Amino acid sequence: MHLFASDNASGVHPAVMAALAAANDGHALAYGDDPWTARASGLLRDLLGAGEVLFVWGGTGGNVVGLQTLLGPQHAVVCPATAHIAVDECGAPERFTGCKLVDVPTPDGKLRPEQVVEQLGGLGDQHHVQPRVVSITQSTELGTLYSPDEVAALGEVAHRHGLLLHMDGARLANAAAALGDVRSFTAEAGVDVLTFGGTKNGAMYGEAVVWFDPARAADARFVRKQAGQLPSKTRFVAAQFEALLTDGLWLANASHANEMARRLGAEVRDVPGVTLTHEPAVNAVFARVPQAAIPSLQEVSAFYVWDQPTSEVRWMCSWDTTEADVTAFAGGVRRVLAAAERQEP
Amino acid sequence: MHLFASDNASGVHPAVMAALAAANDGHALAYGDDPWTARASGLLRDLLGAGEVLFVWGGTGGNVVGLQTLLGPQHAVVCPATAHIAVDECGAPERFTGCKLVDVPTPDGKLRPEQVVEQLGGLGDQHHVQPRVVSITQSTELGTLYSPDEVAALGEVAHRHGLLLHMDGARLANAAAALGDVRSFTAEAGVDVLTFGGTKNGAMYGEAVVWFDPARAADARFVRKQAGQLPSKTRFVAAQFEALLTDGLWLANASHANEMARRLGAEVRDVPGVTLTHEPAVNAVFARVPQAAIPSLQEVSAFYVWDQPTSEVRWMCSWDTTEADVTAFAGGVRRVLAAAERQEP
Amino acid sequence: MHLFASDNASGVHPAVMAALAAANDGHALAYGDDPWTARASGLLRDLLGAGEVLFVWGGTGGNVVGLQTLLGPQHAVVCPATAHIAVDECGAPERFTGCKLVDVPTPDGKLRPEQVVEQLGGLGDQHHVQPRVVSITQSTELGTLYSPDEVAALGEVAHRHGLLLHMDGARLANAAAALGDVRSFTAEAGVDVLTFGGTKNGAMYGEAVVWFDPARAADARFVRKQAGQLPSKTRFVAAQFEALLTDGLWLANASHANEMARRLGAEVRDVPGVTLTHEPAVNAVFARVPQAAIPSLQEVSAFYVWDQPTSEVRWMCSWDTTEADVTAFAGGVRRVLAAAERQEP
Amino acid sequence: MHLFASDNASGVHPAVMAALAAANDGHALAYGDDPWTARASGLLRDLLGAGEVLFVWGGTGGNVVGLQTLLGPQHAVVCPATAHIAVDECGAPERFTGCKLVDVPTPDGKLRPEQVVEQLGGLGDQHHVQPRVVSITQSTELGTLYSPDEVAALGEVAHRHGLLLHMDGARLANAAAALGDVRSFTAEAGVDVLTFGGTKNGAMYGEAVVWFDPARAADARFVRKQAGQLPSKTRFVAAQFEALLTDGLWLANASHANEMARRLGAEVRDVPGVTLTHEPAVNAVFARVPQAAIPSLQEVSAFYVWDQPTSEVRWMCSWDTTEADVTAFAGGVRRVLAAAERQEP
Repeated sequence: MHLFASDNASGVHPAVMAALAAANDGHALAYGDDPWTARASGLLRDLLGAGEVLFVWGGTGGNVVGLQTLLGPQHAVVCPATAHIAVDECGAPERFTGCKLVDVPTPDGKLRPEQVVEQLGGLGDQHHVQPRVVSITQSTELGTLYSPDEVAALGEVAHRHGLLLHMDGARLANAAAALGDVRSFTAEAGVDVLTFGGTKNGAMYGEAVVWFDPARAADARFVRKQAGQLPSKTRFVAAQFEALLTDGLWLANASHANEMARRLGAEVRDVPGVTLTHEPAVNAVFARVPQAAIPSLQEVSAFYVWDQPTSEVRWMCSWDTTEADVTAFAGGVRRVLAAAERQEP
Repeated sequence: MHLFASDNASGVHPAVMAALAAANDGHALAYGDDPWTARASGLLRDLLGAGEVLFVWGGTGGNVVGLQTLLGPQHAVVCPATAHIAVDECGAPERFTGCKLVDVPTPDGKLRPEQVVEQLGGLGDQHHVQPRVVSITQSTELGTLYSPDEVAALGEVAHRHGLLLHMDGARLANAAAALGDVRSFTAEAGVDVLTFGGTKNGAMYGEAVVWFDPARAADARFVRKQAGQLPSKTRFVAAQFEALLTDGLWLANASHANEMARRLGAEVRDVPGVTLTHEPAVNAVFARVPQAAIPSLQEVSAFYVWDQPTSEVRWMCSWDTTEADVTAFAGGVRRVLAAAERQEP
Repeated sequence: MHLFASDNASGVHPAVMAALAAANDGHALAYGDDPWTARASGLLRDLLGAGEVLFVWGGTGGNVVGLQTLLGPQHAVVCPATAHIAVDECGAPERFTGCKLVDVPTPDGKLRPEQVVEQLGGLGDQHHVQPRVVSITQSTELGTLYSPDEVAALGEVAHRHGLLLHMDGARLANAAAALGDVRSFTAEAGVDVLTFGGTKNGAMYGEAVVWFDPARAADARFVRKQAGQLPSKTRFVAAQFEALLTDGLWLANASHANEMARRLGAEVRDVPGVTLTHEPAVNAVFARVPQAAIPSLQEVSAFYVWDQPTSEVRWMCSWDTTEADVTAFAGGVRRVLAAAERQEP
Repeated sequence: MHLFASDNASGVHPAVMAALAAANDGHALAYGDDPWTARASGLLRDLLGAGEVLFVWGGTGGNVVGLQTLLGPQHAVVCPATAHIAVDECGAPERFTGCKLVDVPTPDGKLRPEQVVEQLGGLGDQHHVQPRVVSITQSTELGTLYSPDEVAALGEVAHRHGLLLHMDGARLANAAAALGDVRSFTAEAGVDVLTFGGTKNGAMYGEAVVWFDPARAADARFVRKQAGQLPSKTRFVAAQFEALLTDGLWLANASHANEMARRLGAEVRDVPGVTLTHEPAVNAVFARVPQAAIPSLQEVSAFYVWDQPTSEVRWMCSWDTTEADVTAFAGGVRRVLAAAERQEP
């Protein structure tokens, strides 16, 4: 059964699986001293124009490692209140870095430059934590996108006040596919550290942390190990990234997922009872549905209720979602809501 | 080329690889709500007579998660000075738990009950950290083994004073293969929390944390997530454990590695210039060799110099070490040391 | 010159100073094993009906110690966004406990029970921090007061959901003086842990942390020492509390400060250009004044600009503020604003 | 009754008490923006040739603040196993900084340069914490002294390898009095950060943290606040330091305490049953006495049993110990041990 619950519900792309099998060839030194790691790091550096790349196990770990390299004890991270680091990592950033996250409400998961400025009133005052990092997610947890200009404006305001820009790119591929390019909203927009996601885009596991200025990565290997994020048989993470970065597979996977979400949005948009809350910019469809219909809808496919009070739900597409899956699910939604309507009066 | 550097230099056992491919079948809920996780957890609970099992990415993460569930802020961990948690995890336990590790020197990597008692003088004194966990590694970082009675004695002294017993089992399989059983030195010896290793025994990645009393695991899922150790596509960790625990593959792999180390020890024991520092109880051979010969020996195979001042080296065997690999390496050692001897006037 | 900047700008009440001199009599065991500590702890326990009392250096330390005894690693603290722990302690709670503070916006510095409930959606979900403590300040940082019923409602909602209630009482005396009693809004309202302030009420230094259930204080002495909050010559903290708690000095000091703020509010209320933003419930006057007049006003007395964008300022009264001080300051305010008005057109 | 338990058992020197009373004169801005703080900081900077001085509540807090300003997440502190930071601060340094303390056994509480070098084998290796700070105590917890040359040798070896030198000077005055100068073993010996103690030398409370290079103190005010070590009414800490640093009172107090310990050592040295374990270099006498006699000796004066297994005890002298106190206590020791001898068959 195809699940619209999460892009983590998908399995592994066949080309990635083949790369894992191919990498299982004899011995290789552990902890990154292997040719796969050298090659995959090189591909990522070339793609992004980046200075340093380290592979880690997962997205939470990647964010924690990247953030820690930017933070001293008195620092704070300014991020949208819906950020994965703020609400979905069980406090990992606070636990590991000891630093405060300043969670800023936004209508659409996107931080604005003026919201950053509003948090800077205490700079230099010994009583207050010192904002040091602006962290944004691209594409966001709400399925929205920052334009390259929007990222650049955040980078500019951050750097002007002595802050740095962190990007959680668990779904960076979906953003790159949607925007037609990756450097315009990363390297060229002033991003300092990036988590580059693999897992949600066809990998089995593994993410990369990317420092654009290698000087900021001086302590990164220690921090990675200390965070429990150094894979011992690193070649198997690297081999997956090599496969994804070969012949544009990472973009093809993401483009397909985005297209399936666009199609799903189009198919359910006019179903009575469904209201799309954001246009599907990448691979997620966010919609309000009648509260009472949610259990029946979840029998069609498991999915998350994003916001209980407003009965907003999230339907995720993935690299392996087919048109038939979309049609079947949209049909299920239509059926359930029609039945719900009949029961109402 | 076969490497005697680390059991992490080996690849993935074919049966584990096949299990990964088989698990790549359609969609499954993420974060452990999948049938593979249910089955593999069940196999581990049955094997060990354990209460709760959670899968994590790696050994450092597993240790940190297990320890954190046992520790309050004022607590300390008593462990051998050679423990992986004390010297090879870049301070991850201190960073994540905030607790002190009391590192106790031992001749052979094995803590003694009286050494635990010596650390308890400050119990109840507000100026001192409060020892709460005794942490041992089985088999140890020095390739030695605790007998079931030795573990039980540590469990007894720990519990008598209100402490708990943690076991780092990154190489638990090698210990179980050597001792002919696993419960005798875990559940029956008073171990409270265990890291059960997969990576060094034929897996691609993944370890399990095991709580014998499920009540101690009440917060464990939160702690795992917070430590960045919750695999999103958990089915792929679980599938590997299912493969290892089917038809005794985990013991067969470990037995073979142990036998290869025994054989390597036998082949190099009488080479002039080589002195075994411990009898190879599991899959490691520790030996002193002439300092000057080390670079040439490392051309035969990469390996770690364990202790620079005494020129003690470590040669590791693995599930995929063959008799031919052993013979070839032992031959290389003999050649290098003979040449070294000729050069000395 | 009398300062309306902070109640910390005042010196030490003569009776407290006399108690310090009297306590300087020969030798006494350090770290709380002295008769002053026994007597002062007893007075506080009797006053509050409390289980355990420990003295600490300061308010930030007291809050950190109290909170840590209630928190495990995955826990979070729900508090008003204006809470001292959230904005004025340079991240001390996050640094020391590693736990997230969930900062909730309020109009008046006072948390409502329904706002607590809104934060509980993730209880039991491994991805989210687990709210464990509700922390409120009495009287609040905005000079407002919780009624005993309001505190009790928060205690009730906290306990119903398995949370605990922490009260930052840096200005508890001002609240008790205003409400005419202290137990009604602490012990009887379900407060679990309390910081009982001395410094802002006539002491030289020193606060007390109070646990109503002594079982929750089981680890508190260790936590206090670990937080760097164990005064070595504890008798000198205790002697100050003994003085404050003798013959109701703590209430007399606070009553006087409250009365001075009431008087100051009355004197400036009708000054053109001044708008009181809250009625002065305790010893603070909050007012909006013309932005351009602030520098001249600060020449009359130093004070904090509470909110730059709305040009809201805070004028604090203290145990040693005299009617003459109030009249002089109100006169200065009137003069400056009159001059400002003349300059405007 | 005079106690030989600790220099913390003494009260406050009359001149310090007078300075506290004198500082209690009207209003002063809190948090260090007051003339007392400016004057006392200046006196300390002049005395030491130092760059930055911050006042804190206590010794543990001072050490934590100083160390934190020198440490990143992957760093470790190398210190003697008997260091106050290692055994007497309930793990405060690990809790607050998250960094490992590498506790090195010494015969006399004094670290040697070659012991530092032995800990540097893992520099640059991502698996190991990175030693960054060498921390020593002057005078030591065992009542011994580093000569200026010994400190300089530690400073030299630290700096040569990219480490920094921290000095816990809870009893710095006693060292300065014994060595006849303070710069020779601090600024001129390469100390980077120093805790300068007041409490054990006649103050009521308060220590100073001193950075010799002001650039290292760039974040120090934030760290102090975050550590709960910013006294709100700072003037009262500063006034004590001003008193101590006026007319050499700090040295006079310490000299006297040292002389009383020398005298006590001389009086008990020949008592049958007493063996001095170190020559009293400063204000402590360490001695082995018969285990059975300890309870009776503690009736003469409370004191700490330093090492239970060898029945080594510590008798501390202080600024207020009189010759009569010494004579009375030595007489008590003689009586108890004579009685003990008679009882042995």
